[in-house]
Amino acid sequence: MDYSAQDLGPLFAPRSIAIVGVPRKDYRFGGLSYLMRLEECGFPGRLYPINPKASEIRGRPCYPDLDSLPEVPDLAIVCIPAASVPRLLEDCGRIGVRYIHILSSGFGETGTDEGRRLENEVSRLADRYGLLVVGPNCMGPYCPEAGLTAWGAIPGLPGPLGIISQSGGITQRLTEYACSLGLGTARAVSFGNGTVLSAPDYLQYMASEERVNAVAMYLEGVADARRFLAEAREACLQKPVILWKGGESEAGSRTAASHTGSLAGNKSTWKAFTRQTGIIRVRTLDEWLDAALAFCFLPRGMGRRVFLVGGGGGNSVAHADTCIREGLQMAALSEQTLGWLEENVPVVGSIPGNPLDAWRTFLDAEYLQGLLEAAFADPAVDLVMVDRLIPRKAYHMPHMPDPTPALIRFLSDRSASKPVIFTVDSEGGDPELAAAGAELRALFGRAGIAVYPSVERAARALARRDRYYRWRAGVGG
Amino acid sequence: MDYSAQDLGPLFAPRSIAIVGVPRKDYRFGGLSYLMRLEECGFPGRLYPINPKASEIRGRPCYPDLDSLPEVPDLAIVCIPAASVPRLLEDCGRIGVRYIHILSSGFGETGTDEGRRLENEVSRLADRYGLLVVGPNCMGPYCPEAGLTAWGAIPGLPGPLGIISQSGGITQRLTEYACSLGLGTARAVSFGNGTVLSAPDYLQYMASEERVNAVAMYLEGVADARRFLAEAREACLQKPVILWKGGESEAGSRTAASHTGSLAGNKSTWKAFTRQTGIIRVRTLDEWLDAALAFCFLPRGMGRRVFLVGGGGGNSVAHADTCIREGLQMAALSEQTLGWLEENVPVVGSIPGNPLDAWRTFLDAEYLQGLLEAAFADPAVDLVMVDRLIPRKAYHMPHMPDPTPALIRFLSDRSASKPVIFTVDSEGGDPELAAAGAELRALFGRAGIAVYPSVERAARALARRDRYYRWRAGVGG
Repeated sequence: MDYSAQDLGPLFAPRSIAIVGVPRKDYRFGGLSYLMRLEECGFPGRLYPINPKASEIRGRPCYPDLDSLPEVPDLAIVCIPAASVPRLLEDCGRIGVRYIHILSSGFGETGTDEGRRLENEVSRLADRYGLLVVGPNCMGPYCPEAGLTAWGAIPGLPGPLGIISQSGGITQRLTEYACSLGLGTARAVSFGNGTVLSAPDYLQYMASEERVNAVAMYLEGVADARRFLAEAREACLQKPVILWKGGESEAGSRTAASHTGSLAGNKSTWKAFTRQTGIIRVRTLDEWLDAALAFCFLPRGMGRRVFLVGGGGGNSVAHADTCIREGLQMAALSEQTLGWLEENVPVVGSIPGNPLDAWRTFLDAEYLQGLLEAAFADPAVDLVMVDRLIPRKAYHMPHMPDPTPALIRFLSDRSASKPVIFTVDSEGGDPELAAAGAELRALFGRAGIAVYPSVERAARALARRDRYYRWRAGVGG
Repeated sequence: MDYSAQDLGPLFAPRSIAIVGVPRKDYRFGGLSYLMRLEECGFPGRLYPINPKASEIRGRPCYPDLDSLPEVPDLAIVCIPAASVPRLLEDCGRIGVRYIHILSSGFGETGTDEGRRLENEVSRLADRYGLLVVGPNCMGPYCPEAGLTAWGAIPGLPGPLGIISQSGGITQRLTEYACSLGLGTARAVSFGNGTVLSAPDYLQYMASEERVNAVAMYLEGVADARRFLAEAREACLQKPVILWKGGESEAGSRTAASHTGSLAGNKSTWKAFTRQTGIIRVRTLDEWLDAALAFCFLPRGMGRRVFLVGGGGGNSVAHADTCIREGLQMAALSEQTLGWLEENVPVVGSIPGNPLDAWRTFLDAEYLQGLLEAAFADPAVDLVMVDRLIPRKAYHMPHMPDPTPALIRFLSDRSASKPVIFTVDSEGGDPELAAAGAELRALFGRAGIAVYPSVERAARALARRDRYYRWRAGVGG
């Protein structure tokens, strides 16, 4: 059964939710934690806990079953043991609950006959009643705009990111991570085994949903490869789709089978798939977020000629090496820009060039702004990358001035005519430096400025952005 | 002129230091900051600031020149303009100061005729008087054991790491980073242009210095390639040498010329060099530290069959992929270990295997200890990697118990019969999580336990360790 993209919209904006299987006490992940999180996060609709052994939970009436509810809920979140799920789906079908998220595990992913039989039942019942089932074995839909944030970033931040994932844990991390950098999520779905609704359905939906500017996917396997290829090709023409494919290694693939019952497919098939679509492949959580940030925060369009601004001779050498290795090019600065450098950068202790080693950029906002103006006017520069290690912290110079607020004002007012990307490298075990670095990144991120924890990660993400738009230009997308 | 390794020992343990060129006020990096840092860090020897225009600086008598000092200092730190350096070297030669660190820039690296002339003068005078000159254009020697910590980690931590670097900024970062993870430094030298003493000299010294267990090098170029190759080959047979070569790209190489006047050499030459020695190549500051940590904190010997312990299905899939990609192997667990898993890990919601997805390992120290005992007894396991995301923070579960202290006690008592490596992935913009992650890593690090901020970085470092000891076994080292 295929589902049209329109069908999936209401999944992310239910007005009423039944949570089936809410224990009175159990703070592990499950029915009660879903109820608590939806309360805490201010879900604006009606919440109905279901537990035949309780009349009240957390001061809220509790119902013995779906039939007892005062209305047919838009969404049922199913948190009961796998063996009881088929009967529950019968109930849903009978009373007309259309959207169902099965959180419960214990299906095909266990590798047991009983698990497989139960999963087939889910499939059969969904077909019979036209149920739109997310899962089983997953964390389900997430949508901050609708207050549907039973997991994921707190507080949820609406934004341009779409997420399709077979792993709830990984998706939770991505939403958290993105949120704290000011990158909000439009729609996310953790769909586990993908027994009924699966990757192509969600991808088709995200491609057509205009709130979504870029799609981040984590997949372990795809049942209908032909349809997925078609949907992916179509989606990539609409917007960037970033794919993290789990289970590339034999051990990973074996684990994927136990995690979501997925057949991971072989590496070369996925390589061919990448070539046939404009999909952007990443390999870790960091790369996933980094690419999403580049696509959501920077304007559309290719561009890889970077002007690298920072301080420290060794840093400059290393950062240039890194940018080239990751696929960027060092911009050959114009006469005008070189003139600015000649006038404003001393030869002793600094290196006037690209990369630019000028310690003063760390201290003097006006100076850096003058430099940025020169870079904006330089036709050879596509991107400006500004390194922001924190000298006050990293080099124990607390008296040094902090140009950040002035800089953020400048960039926000100017709504930068060229992408300016910051790197705040605060690595190291020192908790104070780590926190200061994270805070500084959050400051830039919340102002809508792309920021990365290292030049390497920034360069990798920027090169991916360039390659995608280059591909699109090539296929006329 | 060659220097024997013995000659360099005293450079790192001077009993008296003249700082030549200490302004009364100037908080930029230079003579005054050196004096202040040496005071703050409790340098146990005598300090002599030199400035002809001051009689006292910071309550300390100030001298007009070297001749006026009450003794011949063991080390002179030279912070005066480049043009005045030759005359100062004449003074050193005349009165018998043997060890000289020239901090001043403005030599060959400026690319000017005058700069080159001055650098030739340094070379000529060193030769004439037998001066052991570090630099110019560098931060000089660093040795926490001797209280010689005018830059680098505060407070300095003595330890097994040796560092040889053409970049002061990068070296400062490495010492800081290592220190906060409990990895101390035996000897470090930032040597800039390397006009007199250069990479082969320092490498020969570090190889013979028994306090140094592993050497981390950052180089931009090597003047005497033949001698360097010989020293590197010899050093690698003694101890691991980790090389970060700056200036691989054209832009990086051009910047290296302006930074330290180095000729970066071409990529294929350096590749051949790597093959001809057992040198370990890294590409970023993180990789540099990560490798150093693996070599200093883990016992000697190869081993790449890893048992990966963590929680989360998606994480397990991804982490297995990462380990394989980086060059490790997943250990094929013995019947006994599999038996332990079968008895102790539920099938629903967990994945009993390698990787192991068992949420309980995050909460229950005793449970994890049982598992580690099983792994220690398993002949198929070389390494155990334990993932420690912080559920209390990352998943907003503050009531979850923290098994860390018990775990550290267990590992310290047991002085782990096999390497146990922790990963604490606290990435994300959230300052609180970043700080908590850094704190947790510091906790492990200070207990002498190797800890990394991601599985990717741990796996890469462990694979490098394995390859080095495999090489050594191959050459009979």
